[in-house]
Formats: sequence, C-alpha cells, structure tokens
Amino acid sequence: MDLARIGATPKGGVARLTLTDLDREGRDWVVARARDAGMSISVDQVGNIFMRRAGRDPSLPPVMTGSHVDTQPTGGKFDGNYGVLAGLEVVRTLNDHDIVTEAPLEVAVWTNEEGSRFVPVMMGSGVFCGAFGLDHAYAARDAGGRSVREELARIGYLGSEVPGCHPVACYFEAHIEQGPVLEDAATVIGVVDGALGARWYDCTVTGTEAHAGSTPMTSRRDALAVATHVMQEVVALGNRHPPHGRGTVGYVDVFPNSRNVIPGRVRFSIDLRNASAGLLDAMDGEIRAFVDRTRNESGLAIDVQQVAHYAPCPFDAGCIEIVERAAGRLGESHMHVTSGAGHDAIHLARVTPTSMIFVPCKDGISHNEIEDADPSHLEAGASVLLHCMLEKAGVVR
Amino acid sequence: MDLARIGATPKGGVARLTLTDLDREGRDWVVARARDAGMSISVDQVGNIFMRRAGRDPSLPPVMTGSHVDTQPTGGKFDGNYGVLAGLEVVRTLNDHDIVTEAPLEVAVWTNEEGSRFVPVMMGSGVFCGAFGLDHAYAARDAGGRSVREELARIGYLGSEVPGCHPVACYFEAHIEQGPVLEDAATVIGVVDGALGARWYDCTVTGTEAHAGSTPMTSRRDALAVATHVMQEVVALGNRHPPHGRGTVGYVDVFPNSRNVIPGRVRFSIDLRNASAGLLDAMDGEIRAFVDRTRNESGLAIDVQQVAHYAPCPFDAGCIEIVERAAGRLGESHMHVTSGAGHDAIHLARVTPTSMIFVPCKDGISHNEIEDADPSHLEAGASVLLHCMLEKAGVVR
Repeated sequence: MDLARIGATPKGGVARLTLTDLDREGRDWVVARARDAGMSISVDQVGNIFMRRAGRDPSLPPVMTGSHVDTQPTGGKFDGNYGVLAGLEVVRTLNDHDIVTEAPLEVAVWTNEEGSRFVPVMMGSGVFCGAFGLDHAYAARDAGGRSVREELARIGYLGSEVPGCHPVACYFEAHIEQGPVLEDAATVIGVVDGALGARWYDCTVTGTEAHAGSTPMTSRRDALAVATHVMQEVVALGNRHPPHGRGTVGYVDVFPNSRNVIPGRVRFSIDLRNASAGLLDAMDGEIRAFVDRTRNESGLAIDVQQVAHYAPCPFDAGCIEIVERAAGRLGESHMHVTSGAGHDAIHLARVTPTSMIFVPCKDGISHNEIEDADPSHLEAGASVLLHCMLEKAGVVR
Repeated sequence: MDLARIGATPKGGVARLTLTDLDREGRDWVVARARDAGMSISVDQVGNIFMRRAGRDPSLPPVMTGSHVDTQPTGGKFDGNYGVLAGLEVVRTLNDHDIVTEAPLEVAVWTNEEGSRFVPVMMGSGVFCGAFGLDHAYAARDAGGRSVREELARIGYLGSEVPGCHPVACYFEAHIEQGPVLEDAATVIGVVDGALGARWYDCTVTGTEAHAGSTPMTSRRDALAVATHVMQEVVALGNRHPPHGRGTVGYVDVFPNSRNVIPGRVRFSIDLRNASAGLLDAMDGEIRAFVDRTRNESGLAIDVQQVAHYAPCPFDAGCIEIVERAAGRLGESHMHVTSGAGHDAIHLARVTPTSMIFVPCKDGISHNEIEDADPSHLEAGASVLLHCMLEKAGVVR
C-alpha cells in the first residue's frame, strides 16, 4: 500500500510507467527498504536491480525471487509489485527469526516488464536471459523519442554489471493470477507448472467496398461478412482444445468503417495459445486450413501472417514440486495452473530451474485500476515463497 | 468534363463540397451555360437553383428535371453532375431544333445532396419538399463551425424565394446507377420504379474485457464472439429477402481493441433495406428476434437502437411508364430497377409525380474518384430524359 502511493490514480490503481520519475521513486523506495533489511544492491546495464541477502557460503549462486515494479498506464497495485515485496518480506521474516541460509538469497526487480512505454515487454529479464541483446533494448524509444538508455541514465539506474553475468541457482516468482481460475476453484495457491505458448497473427480480408443500398447481396464482396467467419473459427478453435486452448480476436479494423458502405477491407488479430508446442502447431494448422477453405469459398483475398511466436514454457519439475510441497506443508489449498500471461519467470526458465506461485485476484481482473487481492492470500503466497527459497538455499541455523 | 475541372483531384475525381468556393465556381459555371441557352434563373432561400426554359403557356407548372453538383470529398465526375448537365443538354437540343413546349421546363440544382459537409443529406430537396424546415437546414454547421446560412450568403446563393413555393408538374432525374445491376445485365437504361426503404440501427454488445492468455474459454464474456453472430445474421437477413433485401454491417468499434485483450464491448451499425414497408418490417422483426435469442443464449447485454428509418418510396406509375416508353422508342435496352441509394427524387416524389432514369457506371463504383461511365450510355440517358420531358410538357412546334 505504501509503494502503491507512488503513482496512485484516483480510481485506486497505479500509473508508474517504466523509467519515468515515478519509476525511480518506486525503485528508490524498494531499494531503501532492502537496505533497511541489510541487503546489498547491484544494478546491471539494463537497469535490473538485484537485492542480496548474504548466505553462509558466498561462493554459492543465489536462490532468486523477484518480479517488477513498473505498471500499466491504468494498472493495479499488485501486478509485479506483489512479487518484489513478497521477496522483501521473506528476507525480513528471516531477519526477524535470525535465520541464516547456506546460499545467498536475491530479490530481483526486472526493468520494463509491462512494455507499455518501451517495446519489447519483459525487457530486463529478456536481456538478462539472452532472449535478445542489450543493443536491442537500448534502441527502443518511447512515443516521445526517448531511448531506454537515456532514461536509465536519467533516473540513475544505468548500472555497470553486464546482464546475465550473474549466477542464479533457481528462480521462484510470486504473482497474482491475473485470471479467474483460482477464485472460481476457491483455491489459495496456484502451483504454476508452466506458461502457455502463443502464436499471434495479423489477418486481412480484402473485398470490395460498395454502396450498402445499391449493391444487391449477390454482387457483394463483403470483407466483414467473410472475416466474421474466421473470427468465429478462432474462438471455436480455443473451445475445441480444452483445457488450455485459447482463441481470441482482440483487435479489429474495418475500412472504410462507414454505416452505409459495405466493408472493403477488414484487418484483425488472431491470438492462439496452448500448453504444448504440439497442440499449438495443431491449432496453427487448423486455422490455416479454415482460412484456405474460406478463401476458396468466398473468392475474397485472405492473408494470414504470423507476427509473433512464443513457445510454451514448462517449468522445472523440481521447482514445481517444491512449490506444491510448501503449500501442502502450510495447509493452503492448492492446485496446478498454467500461466496464460507473460512473466519474467518465463525468460528465467530458460537459464535456471524456475516455477511460480500464483494467488487469486478479485474477479480475475488485472491490468486495471480496480485490480485487487485478499491480504490473507497475499500472505499465504509469501509464506509459500519463503518455504520454497529456504528449501533451495538450505538453513544453517 | 469541363465542370469536372472545378475541384478536379489528381486521381481523376472531383472534390467540390457543398457551399465551398469550388461549389460557387461550379454553380456559376452551370448558371452561365444555362444563361447561354436562354434560360432564366431563380434561387430559393436554401440555395436551390431553378433554371427555366419558357413554355408557350407561362401559367402551367414546369416539367422539372435536375440533380446536384456538390460532390463527396473523394467523389467522381458523374454522381449528380450528370443529371444537371443532362437537363441542360435537353434544353440545348430543343433550342437546336427550335422546339417550343406547351409547359415550361426547369432544371434544378439542389443544394447539399451529399451531406459530406453539412447534415442532413439531400438538404435542398428536403426543404423544398417539406421533409424538414428551413431553420433545421440553417442550423447545420460544418466541422469548422460555419453555418449553411452563412456559407450560402458568402458564396452568393442565398436566394429570396421561399422553398416549396414553386409549382412543379412532374420530376424526372437522370443519374448514374451507383450499383452493378445494369452493367451486370448489359442494359443501358434503368427504369427506376422507386427507392428502397431503410432502417438503421446501432447495436452494442457488452461483455467483460479480460486477458486473452489467462482467461479460459469457459470463463469468457467475449463481446466480439457474440457480436459476430449478430453481424452474420444481418447479412443472412439480406440474403433471405431477395431481390431487394439488403443487410449490411459497415461500422464496427471494438473496445479496448488490443490484440491480447478479450473485447469487453463491441458497437456496430446495422443497415437493413427493402422495397416495401411490409418486407422492411419483417426484417426488423427478424433481427430483433435474433438479438433476443442471442442475448438469452450468451448472457451478454445486447442493445439495439433504431437510429433512422427511411420509408420505401414507390415512384409514380405514369412517370415510370413514360420512362419505359421513351427507352423503348429510342431502341435502348432497358429494365426496371429500384434505387438502393438516396436521391433528391425521393423527396420530390412526395410532392409531385416522379421517376428516375439510371445509366450504368463502370463496375458499379460511385463515391470514388475512379467513378466512370460510358459516353454512349450518358447520351442514351439524356435522350430518354428529353423524350420524357417532351411527353409531359407537350410540343407546340
């Protein structure tokens, strides 16, 4: 609640976009709390912050947790911020109980997870894990033309450490679910077994714009009438592949978009997701076959271009088991879930054993100023995180 | 081609919006040609121009033709302009052959048929025929805040005649078809037996916006997935009511219109047309019943509001017969057609016996800079117009 005051919106949300003055304030606040807890701080060249609690053996790679403190323009208090503060609370709790771990612990604050101001999203963790290069991140500019590197320097978070040159033993990330599954199942802890893969496409149907009154039905080449069939198939595809299949058309652009003109061109997005590469490939084949049939039947041009491909990301079996065991030991209701959204943990999973801990959010709503979560669920998630980190780091006393 | 030079666009079209300086130039050019042809000119308070060729009996109401010379922002050379110049050509031909008619002939230039700059469309003929008042027309303002009355005065076409206080014996209007029917049937003359009626609606489907990845298919309230069913029914409705039924969704607005967000709200237009009030009422009942079923089945809110209703307009049986007879006498291929688009003639039909003469336009394309028509078809249409006007006006010598 204290951190959420920085960039607070009138509707109860937070607008603290990455690398703004407010982001600096937020980072400074978190870093000050970490120093209060006796942690040491390092920052890398893409602005990722690593807040370290020493272990008995400084030569061991740290057991890491973390998330992000940047928000959407109309974001909530919990997305990302919860994961960072849960990590801080783990450290404070260990301090309170005077517990020493064998391996060090680290809480990471990843730069620009949201991607609202600079593309790509999950930038800091992406550079850290080698998904793309530092130059690619530095080249990104916001709508006002300012670059990531300039803004990092301006707010004082352009560190010297080379991203990725930082050993990690394993990674756990606590996060609100951002979906309705846990709440619907009245379950407190989501043991995250991986993340859905996604294929994103741009689809364009080209017909002929014509007068809605003077063009008989039989003479029409109505791009929208054809496009709506493809849009329905996208949703049907999601329904045909339970439980993890997803099919969404989120963006539609109709040209010329005039009440009495038959649409001549419709562009829309297709978002297909599933939990395995095989299922995602099957969905890809089905939508392409449907488009081919629709093209042949309608005689209209239909172009489908894949614009992004995120491979499904299974998390580490050992880490998943540790999350499950911790939830069970604490007596919290728990279930396996698969993340449909992107998280820094998905990048981390490529370089270190990883899992996540989800807690419910109210009505499954996120990326929204009314985003909310139950304090008892947030506490339970942080307790699970503590047990996971302790198990991996080893307790000395 | 001379008139089309005023406001000519690089792509071969015309941009001569109503009551602009270019409209003044166009009007002045037409009026000058009419004066050259010995016609007298009067202008009414809404800027309609009446160009009169005297008959033997000045007490008889004139046989009228006409159309408009304003264009769409990316309009063509023929829409409207053809009807005015065909009327002028009728007069010149009578002059050439020294023919005197019993009744006077008039060629009208109606103000603001297109409605691109000032709403409502078909403004001049609408005021003339009492569809709405002069005050309503005067109150219209363009995007820059200028009023119709100011602009009429500025370009010198704010006349003194009270609109409608002008007897008319009957009205014929020559026009390009603005659709593909004549061209598809390889027919030169469309004998227009009336105009389709239309009902316009705004439809809003309200669901719940949610993350495209983290929201399972079974938890979704996808406004677009529901809206596409209604959109397809609109087209199916047109197909179920041949030959004149039309169903069009031309405008779509998706919120928040983001690739990875399930749409929470979709607004779209519905345009239903048919040739009789009974058929149009039936279509209205069918779409409302479909929306009711879809609302019940989906559980989403679906709101349908009728925003406009244009009654079907049958033309005068006598005038239709005269057009048909003239085409036959001239040996031109001809067929009955019903106008799907709005025309000044539709207002005139409420106050005087009316019909129209359609000629093909290339590929049925209008309201477009590539609008085109075959000179031999344009000549045939003008010849039919001449015969119609002569039959109604009576030849003295």
